Amino acid sequence: MKIEARLSELGITLPESTKVPASFRQTFPFVRVHENRAYVSGHGPTNPDGSLSQVYGKVGGEVTQDQAYKAARLTGLAILASLKLELGDLDRVEKWLKVLGMVNSAPGFKNQPAVINGFSDLIIEVWGKDAGKHARSAVGMAELPFGLPVEIEAEVLIRP
Amino acid sequence: MKIEARLSELGITLPESTKVPASFRQTFPFVRVHENRAYVSGHGPTNPDGSLSQVYGKVGGEVTQDQAYKAARLTGLAILASLKLELGDLDRVEKWLKVLGMVNSAPGFKNQPAVINGFSDLIIEVWGKDAGKHARSAVGMAELPFGLPVEIEAEVLIRP
Amino acid sequence: MKIEARLSELGITLPESTKVPASFRQTFPFVRVHENRAYVSGHGPTNPDGSLSQVYGKVGGEVTQDQAYKAARLTGLAILASLKLELGDLDRVEKWLKVLGMVNSAPGFKNQPAVINGFSDLIIEVWGKDAGKHARSAVGMAELPFGLPVEIEAEVLIRP
Repeated sequence: MKIEARLSELGITLPESTKVPASFRQTFPFVRVHENRAYVSGHGPTNPDGSLSQVYGKVGGEVTQDQAYKAARLTGLAILASLKLELGDLDRVEKWLKVLGMVNSAPGFKNQPAVINGFSDLIIEVWGKDAGKHARSAVGMAELPFGLPVEIEAEVLIRP
Repeated sequence: MKIEARLSELGITLPESTKVPASFRQTFPFVRVHENRAYVSGHGPTNPDGSLSQVYGKVGGEVTQDQAYKAARLTGLAILASLKLELGDLDRVEKWLKVLGMVNSAPGFKNQPAVINGFSDLIIEVWGKDAGKHARSAVGMAELPFGLPVEIEAEVLIRP
Repeated sequence: MKIEARLSELGITLPESTKVPASFRQTFPFVRVHENRAYVSGHGPTNPDGSLSQVYGKVGGEVTQDQAYKAARLTGLAILASLKLELGDLDRVEKWLKVLGMVNSAPGFKNQPAVINGFSDLIIEVWGKDAGKHARSAVGMAELPFGLPVEIEAEVLIRP
């Protein structure tokens, strides 16, 4: 369990798995696996109990860039919790391939890449530069579900 | 032809293949196949004759959430029509892997996941929970082509 | 070097590799390769020296549709420069599979597909219809990094 050891070393505790708001009927899994690929659904930042994070709204508006960076890191932790639940062991994640980072953007906010660095920094801290590096887009959305400041989806290479 | 039988059982008739507006020069295929993957281009809702649907505009504004749910379901039917045309037989679609659901969102509209359920519900009705389930993001766009309320793209596993 | 020959024939000179603004700490590669896939990060239009292009802003607002078409073509050239740097030889790009074209859209701008044709036309000119064709979505974003008018990401099949 090398990744678990690395998380401990970094002082990181994963949140419980994401709980969507009771009002929402969830029709899809958080992770879809086929052979050596795991497709990760759009996630948002969560609290330790898996409920959606208390920071809502548009980045560059009611949410600051610093808060959004932290939200992107929390989104990464939520994704790791989903991957652990689906795969059993995070060591099965061999390489990060591709990430789409979506930022709920106030008019004129143009620093989406700096926000999504909160996610990318986490992944590289945990998996290292070679396995952790990933193709990435970081872009500005008009709205995100429930008013989340950040939503991130990913494709990762796994050991089947 | 199990999927065709299932569509009949559900009383579903697929529309004709999508016709883009005459003013638009289409430079890409609706489906791109390589080995066991079909990449599905962004589709919108259509009428039975394949023309783009008559419901246009922003969800949460001139388009209601209920109308948008139906538009997402129609978008799914348009995608099935494209897959049938490209693959010859929908039984070649083995598993749904990944879906990006884009909702043309009025300011403050935050229920994109409930809208894209119109698509996911259809796919699971037809393919069942195991083959039909898919990783998914459902997000809010500033604008969509021609003013469509919903646009959906997908990646599916096929039998080569 | 068939693709290089084709670029010469078309009078196309690739720009230098993209340089992000000095203020941005880049945490991701422009291209991520695994076996026969290259995942291409979101790129924008560049000048010949690789700096981001001087056309900024919203398409349908301060940027015209014609300028945006050209920006999408320049984005394609920036992507080719990144692929050449990563792969060594553009002949290793066997097929284009999937493209997400994101247009920084002023309110009411609905011609995203005509803008992204600037990219698709380039790829088909260079690789031809069979290898160059790709599944595609072309959609309207609220904001893009640094105020870029266009951002494009792609997935391509490569010879390992």
